Formats: sequence, structure tokens, C-alpha cells
Amino acid sequence: MQHNSFGDSQCPIARSLERVGECWNILILREAFLGAQRFDEFHKKLGIAPNMLSRRLRAMVEHGLLEKRPYSTRPVRHEYLLTQAGRDFRPVLWALMAWGNRYFAPEGPAVHIVNSATGVPADPLLIDRASGQPLAFPAFRVVAGPAADSHTLAVHPVWPATTPAPAPVPGTEPQPADTDADPRVPALEGCPHDQPDL
Amino acid sequence: MQHNSFGDSQCPIARSLERVGECWNILILREAFLGAQRFDEFHKKLGIAPNMLSRRLRAMVEHGLLEKRPYSTRPVRHEYLLTQAGRDFRPVLWALMAWGNRYFAPEGPAVHIVNSATGVPADPLLIDRASGQPLAFPAFRVVAGPAADSHTLAVHPVWPATTPAPAPVPGTEPQPADTDADPRVPALEGCPHDQPDL
Repeated sequence: MQHNSFGDSQCPIARSLERVGECWNILILREAFLGAQRFDEFHKKLGIAPNMLSRRLRAMVEHGLLEKRPYSTRPVRHEYLLTQAGRDFRPVLWALMAWGNRYFAPEGPAVHIVNSATGVPADPLLIDRASGQPLAFPAFRVVAGPAADSHTLAVHPVWPATTPAPAPVPGTEPQPADTDADPRVPALEGCPHDQPDL
Repeated sequence: MQHNSFGDSQCPIARSLERVGECWNILILREAFLGAQRFDEFHKKLGIAPNMLSRRLRAMVEHGLLEKRPYSTRPVRHEYLLTQAGRDFRPVLWALMAWGNRYFAPEGPAVHIVNSATGVPADPLLIDRASGQPLAFPAFRVVAGPAADSHTLAVHPVWPATTPAPAPVPGTEPQPADTDADPRVPALEGCPHDQPDL
């Protein structure tokens, strides 16, 4: 792996990727959510080489995403259970699923999220829990936080930004169905003081 | 890459990973959201080898996540702009950021999402747009969709499930702050008819 130093970065995305960024790791989490617990289950479902699976499970235990517990003492056998951190990856996985269904399932969804009681397909939307607002740019933006070091401060703006958030043009406010605004809004290209946003 | 066949899978997560699963690809998207457009910008910000960057940018253009556009004709130079599919990856990236800050930033967030107008840090929550309910298991679950083939049907339950969703135990309903239920609820371990859920 060429990105061993990701975990040293202050960026929470880079740190997360260090833990789950490899395809296999995310698919291992997917299988764990689907009920896999034992080495052989992961091996059978993913078709991953045993030594690779072993290495990845070990790393995910070290990173606190899985907990290794014995389920048999003679012979000694372990199972891998999702920790709270592992379970809390579910929204990321579901957001990824929704994105995949939106763009890479032209034949319709083969797998999707439904309301357990009604069977109605869910339409995932990321919101801010406190305000209830859709979590979309430019109403929300990424800025340096209280623990930012000089490197992070060189890359990310602090709040309040040097220029205010671009005011919506009347009649063009994003609708609830549009969870995102074009990051290439004129302000980004036209005004060098306007800071781009993650 | 050992996972060239992911894109053939019906699983929307596997298909998405085929497009963005490698760490570098997600970090390239991150830089694009931060404003990078030109090869040299991505190169400088990510410290990625030119040939590797070139290959990844090309793949992301092929997958429809970036659009390659000339910005200079003499010499010919291109810039890479997020497409709608690329921009719609933002909720995944933000969900990943929130998860990273929650578990891998013991010193506090170095980078976080704030309300652009107030500066108040956001608390990302995935909900179902139609019903407004938090998108959490077991209120929602992953089932086979209309395009499921026999392989998918062998792995994922269809709705209605063979057994109803486990009823919440009085007094243990998940609070709004708990966006997830323990997938290792007794029903999963105690009742072989209960299907695990992604």
C-alpha cells in the first residue's frame, strides 16, 4: 500500500480511508452487516485469499472496527463482530449504496434500502440533525476545526470565511430534491477570494 | 487490482467501489471538491506519482465522475471537473468525514462541516427524504430490488421478509442520537428465521 501515511493526516476522510479505504475492507464490513462472523463465512462470501483476509481482519480489529471473540475453545476458533465504530459505518455504506443505485444501476436496483414496515424504498438524504436542514453545499461547508494544525489551516478555510457564503440567486434556491449545488458556481471561478469547499 | 470484477456485481456498493473504491480515487474527489481542476494541482496536493494520477483520472473520466475539458489549446491542456455523478458523491464523503471525526479524531476535529451562515458544526444524520425518519436498522433494511438476479436473491431477503422486523423492546427504542441499532440484537443470534441486514 502506497498510502500508509494517510492515518497521520489530520483529514478525517484520510483517517477513515486508512481504516476502511481498501475495497476489501468495505466489503468485509458489508458482509459483517449481512451477518458474517466467522473467517470461513467471510472467505466463502468474498472469495478473498485467506492470507489477505486474515491480514485485513487483523487490521480491522486493531482499528477498532471489529471485535475478535472466541466461539470455540477446542479447537480455538474466533468470530469477528462489529464494534460500535463498525456499526456506525452503516450510514456511509448506505449513502454509498444509494449513490451506486443512482448512477450505476441502469437496469434498476438489485439491492436497495426499504422501510421495514411498508417495503417502500427509502430515499436517503443527509441532513443536519440539529437544524433538520439538508446537509448540502453551500448552506453547509467544510472548514478547519479547533484541532487544525498549520497544514490543515493552509488547505481549509476557517469560519467565518473571508467572504460570506454566496447568496442564492432568487428563484434558483436548491430544492429539497437537489441535495447539492454545483461546486463550480460562478463565485468559485470568478472570485479568487471565494474559497472552494469540500 | 484484485477486484476488477466488482463492477460486474449487482451490488451497488461493489459497483461504486469499482468507481471510487481506491483510496486515491476518493482523495482525488476530495481535492476536486476543494477546487483542484488541473493535473498539476492534483499532483501537488496529493503527492501521487504522475503515472498513477494519470491512470486514475482517466478511469474516473471513463466512469463519468470527472469531465475532461481543454482549458488551453497551445499547448493543449485539460482540466478535470466534477460531473453531476461526481458532485453527488459529496454526501458519501461527508458521511465518511463525520465518521472519521467521531472515531479517529481524539484531539477534536481538525476539519469539519459547519453551517455556512452560523458556523455551528453540523451533526450529519441520514434520513429517508420521504418520511423524514432516520435511516437506521431495523426501521429500514436492505432487501433485493426489482432487478435482482438469482445470485442477489440468494444473498438478500425480499420484502416482506419471511419474519417481520423485530419489534422494539419497550424502553429500548433507539434515541435520535443513536442512528443505529446493534445488528447483534438477540433476534439475529436467537432466531434462525430472522434475516440479518446490511
